[in-house]
Amino acid sequence: MERLKGSQHEYQHTLMYGRYTKELGEFAREEAIKLDKKRKKEERLRNEELHKYRGKCATKLASAFGFVWRHTFAKLGEDWVFLALLGLIMAFLSFIMDHGITMCNKGRIWLFRDLATHPFAQYMAWVSLPVCLILFSAGFVHIVAPQSIGSGIPEMKTILRGVSLKEYLTFRTLVAKVIGLTATLGSGLPLGKEGPFVHIASIVATLLSKLVTSFQGIYENESRNTEMLAAACAVGVASCFGAPIGGVLFSIEVTTVYFAIRNYWRGFFTAVCGATVFRLLAVWFQKADTVRAIFQTNFTMDFPFDSQELLVYSLMGVVCGLGGAGYVWSHRQYVLFMRRNKKMNTFLQKNRFLYPGIVALVASTVSFPLGLGQYMAGDLNTHDQVSGLFSNFTWTKDYITVEEQDVLRHWKTKNTDVLFSLCGFMLYTFVFSIVSSTIPVPSGSFIPVFKIGAAFGRLVGELLHLSFPQGVRYGKINTPIIPGGYATVGAAAYSGAVTHTISVSVIVFEMTGQITHIIPIMVSIIIILRTIYINLIHCLFVTKNYKFIIN
Amino acid sequence: MERLKGSQHEYQHTLMYGRYTKELGEFAREEAIKLDKKRKKEERLRNEELHKYRGKCATKLASAFGFVWRHTFAKLGEDWVFLALLGLIMAFLSFIMDHGITMCNKGRIWLFRDLATHPFAQYMAWVSLPVCLILFSAGFVHIVAPQSIGSGIPEMKTILRGVSLKEYLTFRTLVAKVIGLTATLGSGLPLGKEGPFVHIASIVATLLSKLVTSFQGIYENESRNTEMLAAACAVGVASCFGAPIGGVLFSIEVTTVYFAIRNYWRGFFTAVCGATVFRLLAVWFQKADTVRAIFQTNFTMDFPFDSQELLVYSLMGVVCGLGGAGYVWSHRQYVLFMRRNKKMNTFLQKNRFLYPGIVALVASTVSFPLGLGQYMAGDLNTHDQVSGLFSNFTWTKDYITVEEQDVLRHWKTKNTDVLFSLCGFMLYTFVFSIVSSTIPVPSGSFIPVFKIGAAFGRLVGELLHLSFPQGVRYGKINTPIIPGGYATVGAAAYSGAVTHTISVSVIVFEMTGQITHIIPIMVSIIIILRTIYINLIHCLFVTKNYKFIIN
Repeated sequence: MERLKGSQHEYQHTLMYGRYTKELGEFAREEAIKLDKKRKKEERLRNEELHKYRGKCATKLASAFGFVWRHTFAKLGEDWVFLALLGLIMAFLSFIMDHGITMCNKGRIWLFRDLATHPFAQYMAWVSLPVCLILFSAGFVHIVAPQSIGSGIPEMKTILRGVSLKEYLTFRTLVAKVIGLTATLGSGLPLGKEGPFVHIASIVATLLSKLVTSFQGIYENESRNTEMLAAACAVGVASCFGAPIGGVLFSIEVTTVYFAIRNYWRGFFTAVCGATVFRLLAVWFQKADTVRAIFQTNFTMDFPFDSQELLVYSLMGVVCGLGGAGYVWSHRQYVLFMRRNKKMNTFLQKNRFLYPGIVALVASTVSFPLGLGQYMAGDLNTHDQVSGLFSNFTWTKDYITVEEQDVLRHWKTKNTDVLFSLCGFMLYTFVFSIVSSTIPVPSGSFIPVFKIGAAFGRLVGELLHLSFPQGVRYGKINTPIIPGGYATVGAAAYSGAVTHTISVSVIVFEMTGQITHIIPIMVSIIIILRTIYINLIHCLFVTKNYKFIIN
Repeated sequence: MERLKGSQHEYQHTLMYGRYTKELGEFAREEAIKLDKKRKKEERLRNEELHKYRGKCATKLASAFGFVWRHTFAKLGEDWVFLALLGLIMAFLSFIMDHGITMCNKGRIWLFRDLATHPFAQYMAWVSLPVCLILFSAGFVHIVAPQSIGSGIPEMKTILRGVSLKEYLTFRTLVAKVIGLTATLGSGLPLGKEGPFVHIASIVATLLSKLVTSFQGIYENESRNTEMLAAACAVGVASCFGAPIGGVLFSIEVTTVYFAIRNYWRGFFTAVCGATVFRLLAVWFQKADTVRAIFQTNFTMDFPFDSQELLVYSLMGVVCGLGGAGYVWSHRQYVLFMRRNKKMNTFLQKNRFLYPGIVALVASTVSFPLGLGQYMAGDLNTHDQVSGLFSNFTWTKDYITVEEQDVLRHWKTKNTDVLFSLCGFMLYTFVFSIVSSTIPVPSGSFIPVFKIGAAFGRLVGELLHLSFPQGVRYGKINTPIIPGGYATVGAAAYSGAVTHTISVSVIVFEMTGQITHIIPIMVSIIIILRTIYINLIHCLFVTKNYKFIIN
């Protein structure tokens, strides 16, 4: 520094370089200050221009919020606060929607059982609520945001691969999807919430991103958006089933071809936040004892299955693989059939409410508990159906306790036994989940497929018990077969076969809270993946004309 | 075709184009046949040239094997057969090595307990086997392949990122690693087998790849090799702990920055094959009842923990995070200290067997069951230590059954209680796992870290039980605290903190066969990942001078 000063003084004496009267460093600093002032002025102008489009109050609020944000959370690492917030919001949304769905289901049972006495009045009570709900959902979704129709996973895949489908991630779509989905699932049709929930999570993530960028003065960042969407896929599944690990695996499998490990951490963080809060809400508001899995099973861990039963499990894998392919094929044939019929198509499009109404009417008529519904546990909601199928006792055994009888009375009639009901349940769910998924409402297919698999597994288990009442184990001790274990394996295998993912196996472990059947489940799923090559999500791609995306 | 023939006849009349006497298609076919003949001849020549370097018998065998292969497995999809084979080989290797390690451990206990009677003779018996085994391992590894020293995961990371370290994937390295690792772990030092096993799996995959390409006539394929190595990482963990899902997650986390979903399927397939066969071998050869987890726990699923205990679990996450960082820091300081001491360094390098011998001597002296060893369950092997820590009963309760006493007698002495032994165990494992990992033998650090965490969790659980003997739950029913649950959470949290991975949580679920504590484990791990930023594998990178790889 001293040397520089000296040389600078010498410079002043000459004529030619006389303009070097300041130190270079100082000059640079002054220039920087000038530039900074200019930048700030521009920013102020830009902000003023922006503020014309905002209310005064909103401006003040945003700036206050921005100030608080910059001095608290931004220092913690804003991305992580953002991800935690995403998890929190999804947990609350999931909890509130579940509450709404349960209320609808309970209302229907109450109408059917307590309000009406004459069979015809009972039938009207049973049928009216689903039809109204589906019609409301179809109408609401059509008016507010038709983009919210369907599962949303094909769209998410498309967006994550770089195609801009911006209208799929708006606030309107969010409102339509949340309300439409609650009404749809409240109707009791065999439809699920996983797919739509991934879509909802993605919308929430996008909106949150926009909110954060709007008061932070940073511009949108394409790569950051993709990261957020991948995390959103994970939290969607996690807060839907309380399955953080399964959610992250799902987001790995479904979203991209090359998965950035960076997203993996974000996904886990959000998913754990979502799943934890979702389960805690059940403790705080629903008087649950403690944090537990949704479909908690209680199989013995001492001897869950014999190693020889692995052969049966592998065979189940083959059957489920073929059955899953059959499901996807039937779904596709039905969609193509409906499209090909041009006349019917135009007629139905003119009378927009006719098709949803007819489907809802037929489906609820078939499941009417005094009619055909008695052969398919029609008077149970999804949660009770799955809990029953996963229950830890053999349905076909001789001695049955009172509590067990309470589960079983839905699954048998005076004339028929449980095996008949299981077949009826599978048939009903198979046919009507395909038909219902073509109604223009928000809906997913995971849970119905899961139920079909669970019923199939229970059927195999019960048949095996009837064939080998003493168990298949050679040697000293007799250990009977546990049909509930077959039900979990069947559920995992069949839903794995239809969605063509391995993550469902992990989701099943997390949903049931047991990992004892890991080897059978993994073996059957691996066998499935060698049996079939097509899958549901890809099929939806084809029918939605996003063919170019399939890789 | 007819038109072409016509035009061809016309051509024959002119002079200039007279050479078109044949159809173009036919001409092309003939040319193709010629080329094919030429190619076959060249191939034969090339083969003959190759066969000079092979025995006649080997040639015939290879060609016969190649024929069988092409007509059976190649049609099934050879990659999948190859992956299944990899899983199978790894399962057998893991099983045989476990058997060898158990034999060494049993032999040591037998020498100590049944052969010698005088305390000094007992001491000599206790100390001699570990020192001999470590010296043998160090010598064997030094002579056969020094590349097999250490865990091998940093090398695998380096190879998977494209740096060629070919000498790390040879048959010599495989032999050195398998035999060296068995001897090292047989010595009873607090070292693990996960890291080396990933390395072993990678070598097996590479050798298998070479074998397949050699009799198939296809050349090596760089991208295919990478796929195989990623699958090998998964199967390494899977066949080591019987944890297929955790293995795949580990391979995702550790191997690359962008993970190809293609590898995910391969990884799962191989990992499931490996884990299933590994567990089945235990059924077939060790008279195990059925396929079960390695450290099967048996906690109640009705009320595993209260939601208020989540606070304690989160605090454990913070402590484990800091403790994990402390472990990595201490490891690094020790390594740097040993390096800086140039004089000692040169002295030890000249007397190559001195350092391993001293470490083995000191470690086994400290763990001598009649001396300090009684305060740290020194007379148990790793499996029994972990099983004890995970056991489903409270160690500090008043009434203890005979079976429980059988577990506890290793963990308390006449003068001290279990809490003292737990602290002693933690201290011993902490210090000597760091010191032992610097011996030039194949070894990993996962299992010792896992044991420290389990002991810490058990300590917290027991202290909590002493503070709240009636449990922390408000309201009607008293549900006591389950310290075994804290042990599993502690094990997952601490090993997650040291290795800086989430996959350990899944590995813990699969090792214990229970997923009831998923929420506490995930919460504490997520908290850890926000607490620390450095990790063991990266630290090994730094000390091994692969600094440029860290991203």
